[in-house]
Amino acid sequence: MTEAFDAVDLIVAKRERRTLPTDGIRWLVDAFTRGVVADEQMAAWAMAVLLNGMDRREIRDLTLAMIDSGERMTFEGLGRPTVDKHSTGGVGDKITLPLAPLVASFGIAVPQLSGRGLGHTGGTLDKLESIAGWRPDLDPAALRAQLADVGAAICAAGGDLAPADKRLYALRDTTGTVESIPLIASSIMSKKIAEGTAALVLDVKFGSGAFMRESAMAEELARTMVALGTDAGVTTVALLTDMSVPLGLTSGNAIEVEESVEVLAGGGPADVRELTLALAAEMLALGGLPDADPAAALDDGRAMDVWRRMIRAQGGDPDAALPVARERHTVVAEADGVLLEQDAMAVGVAAWRLGAGRARQGEAVQHAAGVRLHAKRGDVVRAGQPLATLLTDDPGRLPRGLEAIAGAHVIAPAGTPVPERPLVAARIA
Amino acid sequence: MTEAFDAVDLIVAKRERRTLPTDGIRWLVDAFTRGVVADEQMAAWAMAVLLNGMDRREIRDLTLAMIDSGERMTFEGLGRPTVDKHSTGGVGDKITLPLAPLVASFGIAVPQLSGRGLGHTGGTLDKLESIAGWRPDLDPAALRAQLADVGAAICAAGGDLAPADKRLYALRDTTGTVESIPLIASSIMSKKIAEGTAALVLDVKFGSGAFMRESAMAEELARTMVALGTDAGVTTVALLTDMSVPLGLTSGNAIEVEESVEVLAGGGPADVRELTLALAAEMLALGGLPDADPAAALDDGRAMDVWRRMIRAQGGDPDAALPVARERHTVVAEADGVLLEQDAMAVGVAAWRLGAGRARQGEAVQHAAGVRLHAKRGDVVRAGQPLATLLTDDPGRLPRGLEAIAGAHVIAPAGTPVPERPLVAARIA
Repeated sequence: MTEAFDAVDLIVAKRERRTLPTDGIRWLVDAFTRGVVADEQMAAWAMAVLLNGMDRREIRDLTLAMIDSGERMTFEGLGRPTVDKHSTGGVGDKITLPLAPLVASFGIAVPQLSGRGLGHTGGTLDKLESIAGWRPDLDPAALRAQLADVGAAICAAGGDLAPADKRLYALRDTTGTVESIPLIASSIMSKKIAEGTAALVLDVKFGSGAFMRESAMAEELARTMVALGTDAGVTTVALLTDMSVPLGLTSGNAIEVEESVEVLAGGGPADVRELTLALAAEMLALGGLPDADPAAALDDGRAMDVWRRMIRAQGGDPDAALPVARERHTVVAEADGVLLEQDAMAVGVAAWRLGAGRARQGEAVQHAAGVRLHAKRGDVVRAGQPLATLLTDDPGRLPRGLEAIAGAHVIAPAGTPVPERPLVAARIA
Repeated sequence: MTEAFDAVDLIVAKRERRTLPTDGIRWLVDAFTRGVVADEQMAAWAMAVLLNGMDRREIRDLTLAMIDSGERMTFEGLGRPTVDKHSTGGVGDKITLPLAPLVASFGIAVPQLSGRGLGHTGGTLDKLESIAGWRPDLDPAALRAQLADVGAAICAAGGDLAPADKRLYALRDTTGTVESIPLIASSIMSKKIAEGTAALVLDVKFGSGAFMRESAMAEELARTMVALGTDAGVTTVALLTDMSVPLGLTSGNAIEVEESVEVLAGGGPADVRELTLALAAEMLALGGLPDADPAAALDDGRAMDVWRRMIRAQGGDPDAALPVARERHTVVAEADGVLLEQDAMAVGVAAWRLGAGRARQGEAVQHAAGVRLHAKRGDVVRAGQPLATLLTDDPGRLPRGLEAIAGAHVIAPAGTPVPERPLVAARIA
């Protein structure tokens, strides 16, 4: 068979900062899927894209080509509007857990096709698997039935959605080509658009614990994804949120489920509740309910009812005791003062090294491992007061966990002003 | 085994324009040779190098690492100084054929480890194989014996010299990462330094028929290679030469041998003789004979004597008739005037398509195929006068040969000034 394009020509074109034609991008992704374009060619192309960029039309073409490499789902005919949410990932980011049942309690379908953790950021499925009996896998028919019945489902993304993206992502992971806005945006959005949601709210994080440290980069990623969603007919809104400190007081698996249940019971840390409500308000507005009151649904038990039904529908027991770590070690404040910094990356790496996360795909995680914080940035602390408890089932992991968290906390003399950092820094629509 | 470096770290470092440490570069080449660094990782790294560059120390480290991946030859104890020459390749570039015996006729050892042609540039070995019985392969002992006896040898480079370069070059060829000065310079110089020559003259070409079209790029490549040679203890000089028009009147295999013999007999086209003498003067000076008169050795038959002995030493018959093409087609001038342009690339592609070259490694070439020119740039021509004869054994190849040469010749009205272009544009030492 004669191929319509030559891989080297397309690599050289991007290397020389030329704009690639639509049919060239579609051929490249299709030929990569067919094995005609080799891994080393795709890796060289990805590096050229990372260094030379892509314009809006090229990113859209790449996204559509990746969608076309697999199945496309649809949630039409469910009888409920569908709104999805995606977070670029952070430390202590358990927001999906309270958010999905909260929004579903207003009659909106929330299909949360989620992933597992890698490195310092945890995975939603890893967290939920702390619940006895809970299963992440739902086939499309079961997912549809659960959305029609319960309204919310958090489950594993099937391998049939955008398989070209899956292959390209695995390649980028080993070739130093992850940190490219066009490639990140098309990767996220190809899966979300293939999933068939009508509307999407993005939580794009910046700061030390986020994938994008600089808020300007996060904003560019957010704008790129909002444009992609809009171009594909998916109404998309993004919130730019601060990830310089961990979200809430827990980073791990079971302990994050515990904190999520607190929020669903109307309590929980203020920041977790604030971000849950901010994202819920966006999702409800996209679902046609701009005047809904999500805070009331947390406070009066409606969101908790959907949570319990959602966990049961996937085989879980919402009343089962969560696993508890065998080993714990408390880190205390070394001086009196005010907590000026509480570095998200350091806390995330500590939780990972304690066993809550994995270094490579396929590794098991410890459900009880993680870091429980006892103070938040801005709090007044006294010497000897506990700042964090490290949790693990494996005492051999404590030294590296301690090493990771060592520089996380910065205590300034009492009275030092701690600058305000709004949790939601911007909204992009 | 624990590896000293991580491939992704080294890729990201170059992606972010950082300078790589010496031991990092050595590890990368060694790990690539061992298969620990995958092709897709090396391809991403090569693209990052192409776009972000390398400094002099990094290029030296890369070159030395590639040398260390294989054997290193030595010509010490030969009893003659050794001087080598390398050309970056062009159209009608048969200079090695008269040059090696010419320089050897002064008592200097000239080991010309050569390659085969690919695309529009011919290969020295392909040309010499037009001579009945001539064999390109010499093992190291036979090469040494021939250098001690005859003084000159043109033979195939063994696979044991810089095998990492061989693998990297094959990868670059399919991943759009060929056109990088650090990678080209280290590729050429790793083989030349591993070969064990004491001194080296480089013919770095620019213009339409050359690998580097821009003279500024060719100059940068030349300076990079001279620095590399100097750093490695090989005295290196480069001439920057014009390749916008073909060298001499022949582009092919047997017809280039024929023209080379004319030069060795004291005749031949003026440009071929001029470049042969310019490179010979540089080689003789590096060999300790700055006052030698190479023109005399062409005119009085000394160079021809060495040529005949060199061809015989490798099984060839210097008196055998050269193959003649079965098909020929003459292209004539369409108007009276002056030949303003004679595009080297167009002539080279025509010769390639007529069968003198190959599209991929391993293909056979036609020894009799090629293009014979009847006029040179700057000549006054008349309508209907022959400009070129296309030669091939396969009439089916004529149409594509004609198509390639169609735009090669530009005739301007008589009296139009044709700007002078010196053949040797600069000397870099």
